[in-house]
Amino acid sequence: MPAKSMDELISLCKRRGFIFNGSDIYGGLRGTYDYGPLGVELKLALKRAWWRSIVYDRDDVEGVDASILGNRLIYKHSGHEDTFHDPLVDCKDCKQRMRQDKMEDEKKCDFCGSKNLTDPRPFSQMMKAGVGVIEGEYAYLRPETAQGIFINFKNVLDSTGRKLPFGIAQVGKAFRNEIAPRSFTFRLVEFEQMELEFFVEPGEDDKWHEYWVAARRDWWIAQGLSADNLKYEKHKKESLSHYSKATTDILYRFPHGFDELEGIANRTDFDLGSHSKEQDLVKAKVMPNKDSTEKLLYTDPFENKTFVPFVIEPSCGVDRGVLAVLSEAYTEEQLANGEKRLLLKLKPHLAPVKVAVVPLARNNEKIMEFSERIRAGLHELGIGRILMETSGNVGKAYRKNDEIGTPLCVTVDFESIEKEPASVTIRDRDTMDQIRIPASELSFYITNFFKNE
Amino acid sequence: MPAKSMDELISLCKRRGFIFNGSDIYGGLRGTYDYGPLGVELKLALKRAWWRSIVYDRDDVEGVDASILGNRLIYKHSGHEDTFHDPLVDCKDCKQRMRQDKMEDEKKCDFCGSKNLTDPRPFSQMMKAGVGVIEGEYAYLRPETAQGIFINFKNVLDSTGRKLPFGIAQVGKAFRNEIAPRSFTFRLVEFEQMELEFFVEPGEDDKWHEYWVAARRDWWIAQGLSADNLKYEKHKKESLSHYSKATTDILYRFPHGFDELEGIANRTDFDLGSHSKEQDLVKAKVMPNKDSTEKLLYTDPFENKTFVPFVIEPSCGVDRGVLAVLSEAYTEEQLANGEKRLLLKLKPHLAPVKVAVVPLARNNEKIMEFSERIRAGLHELGIGRILMETSGNVGKAYRKNDEIGTPLCVTVDFESIEKEPASVTIRDRDTMDQIRIPASELSFYITNFFKNE
Repeated sequence: MPAKSMDELISLCKRRGFIFNGSDIYGGLRGTYDYGPLGVELKLALKRAWWRSIVYDRDDVEGVDASILGNRLIYKHSGHEDTFHDPLVDCKDCKQRMRQDKMEDEKKCDFCGSKNLTDPRPFSQMMKAGVGVIEGEYAYLRPETAQGIFINFKNVLDSTGRKLPFGIAQVGKAFRNEIAPRSFTFRLVEFEQMELEFFVEPGEDDKWHEYWVAARRDWWIAQGLSADNLKYEKHKKESLSHYSKATTDILYRFPHGFDELEGIANRTDFDLGSHSKEQDLVKAKVMPNKDSTEKLLYTDPFENKTFVPFVIEPSCGVDRGVLAVLSEAYTEEQLANGEKRLLLKLKPHLAPVKVAVVPLARNNEKIMEFSERIRAGLHELGIGRILMETSGNVGKAYRKNDEIGTPLCVTVDFESIEKEPASVTIRDRDTMDQIRIPASELSFYITNFFKNE
Repeated sequence: MPAKSMDELISLCKRRGFIFNGSDIYGGLRGTYDYGPLGVELKLALKRAWWRSIVYDRDDVEGVDASILGNRLIYKHSGHEDTFHDPLVDCKDCKQRMRQDKMEDEKKCDFCGSKNLTDPRPFSQMMKAGVGVIEGEYAYLRPETAQGIFINFKNVLDSTGRKLPFGIAQVGKAFRNEIAPRSFTFRLVEFEQMELEFFVEPGEDDKWHEYWVAARRDWWIAQGLSADNLKYEKHKKESLSHYSKATTDILYRFPHGFDELEGIANRTDFDLGSHSKEQDLVKAKVMPNKDSTEKLLYTDPFENKTFVPFVIEPSCGVDRGVLAVLSEAYTEEQLANGEKRLLLKLKPHLAPVKVAVVPLARNNEKIMEFSERIRAGLHELGIGRILMETSGNVGKAYRKNDEIGTPLCVTVDFESIEKEPASVTIRDRDTMDQIRIPASELSFYITNFFKNE
């Protein structure tokens, strides 16, 4: 029962503080969004889950965090300067600009219908930022995090002594001057990526490509996405990126239709080869490189052979991931009493608020005191945000926490403070079941709930 | 026993994979650095500790994650367009540019000694990035994360229903076109900030300012910094920023000397006032605002009075924090046998690798199998990176893990696999003490070690 339309999702995001327009009070800034109090937690949780699965739960991946600003030479040799642009057309009458490949009719202006158009010319998606004190000096804002991994290949190899196969992972912002940002946070100018570059011996690449396609799909399912809403799409030869031998996309059924959630590409030895100062061992077709100071090679210590590793790249967008997870979790239920209930069925590890403490009577000092003690005890578990929910009566408190995806509400009522042993009620978001347990068992219960999910 | 010089710290950072030069293989990019496999973990851990202390362990702070790119109007009204620049001087002879306030002698070129200089002119530290399809259209890369909080004040208030006092926290990248980046990762062009804007009722601001100065110092001490290496410095009236009523810096004894680690400023109602479309309640001197679409006000629900909150801002640099923590942890010990030992005495929660598993004999199948089982069990604890350490003999493994700050090594030897019950040795980084425990108790021991630190 995922969201039926993007509009209802956008409305919830704004009302409950998941996602706001970027530069909101100044009319916005196209293709940028700000994550609010709940959105930031969901995004952090998704990134943590990825990092844990890719870096902590394995012993063959190292992490890095490279700078967003990059020397121009990186993007000269990566091929982005030559290939990373859209065909742009100007209308000579109304002066509007359009992407030719997105026009409704390539011969007529989308805005005024004029046929008085310029020839298409390449428009770079790469964004420049002025740096230094010399006029016109600039660096690129990275269009993908991947290049920060490739250029550090030797640094990582030298400092860790890794043997193939091994990967390098990174999470961070990237920027593309999209002419046509669209579909809420799906296509953005400023976005965040989670990328793994997994280096393998040539010949082993097809096998690892298959491995990562399957592993990544499993991971998305573990984040709550239904298998029915996921499918694979293999890129056709003619639509492959300049660096790729084969790419499989994992598509998700977003509110606007099936669209790319993650791409798993076999980038061959194109990138390491392109950035290497010696290229005689490179198999891919690369531009000569007189700028790089390093040989990006690997020597097998057992067989004493030297080669340029191939690389398999599972690459996904954090913002798209958050959008997919939100859309999937969005649920409208018809209750027995005829009322409707809106809830976010988020996996507990992704829920922005882990537990809401609900005092039944806000004007009762003993109930408030006891609730504060409960909250303090839950804070000590270090499981994330614990919210003292005092915004309305208990029914409203439950409805609100359903809407923001809080898995458990802990309610403190008169019985809690009047009867021995002290007890609390735990209410489950999805089933709405309530159970009463001794307050002394609460920490154990909550810890287990979040451990065993 | 912190690092005696920046050079020895830089050398360790490069050798062990904490920090590399940005755009390294292309001659670098001034003022940018890349975090390697260990650096990224240390940085993540410091950010997590901050977020936990500021957001999770309290119930009066919300988080946000606003975009790096900002509409120009934000930085017009924040005052940055008018005030955020350095005085720049050109040498007419050698064509070099310099910051006048950093010149050795204001009358003579630092490079060629010429007196043939231009008059100083303001040089903006703000970086522009081209956006959209119109020539010359640009957005700013934020010079501080703070503004993304102020412009979302109403969004956060409306979606959470918070009452004063409450704060909004953010962690993220910021950019300044520093003419003179220096001292390794201390002063950068691209850097990361952890900022809290804590909103209070006017009149309560001095009290909260004091509170946060003390709280933030305590937090840095909890990250391992020695009280002896910290001191306060109150800004003099004439050196206060344009928005500030009072600022106290927390200085740390870096290898290059005492320098700013964190600033705690009383920004009054300057920022909310500047970004508000109605300014009659604003006490600070602000520029008229016809661009904003919102009133950034607060109405006290109990006393029904409306006002612009004051804000206390504890703001620190993540990169400076990492540098301080690394410098403090850097320790050289003279051992009884005359040898020297280099170790990083990082707090366990900040250590990049939590536990190293050290098999005593790499060519013994049973030892390797058992070690793998130990490692798999530790992975399940979800405490962070667990490293299978097979890079040398056991002595070298300990030395390496001392250098990268791994708190515990778990060693698997012949006794581990030959005697019942199976056992392992745990070796402590700081004391070098070794104890043998049953393997069945390992998970419990490790969990407790990291919980009780």
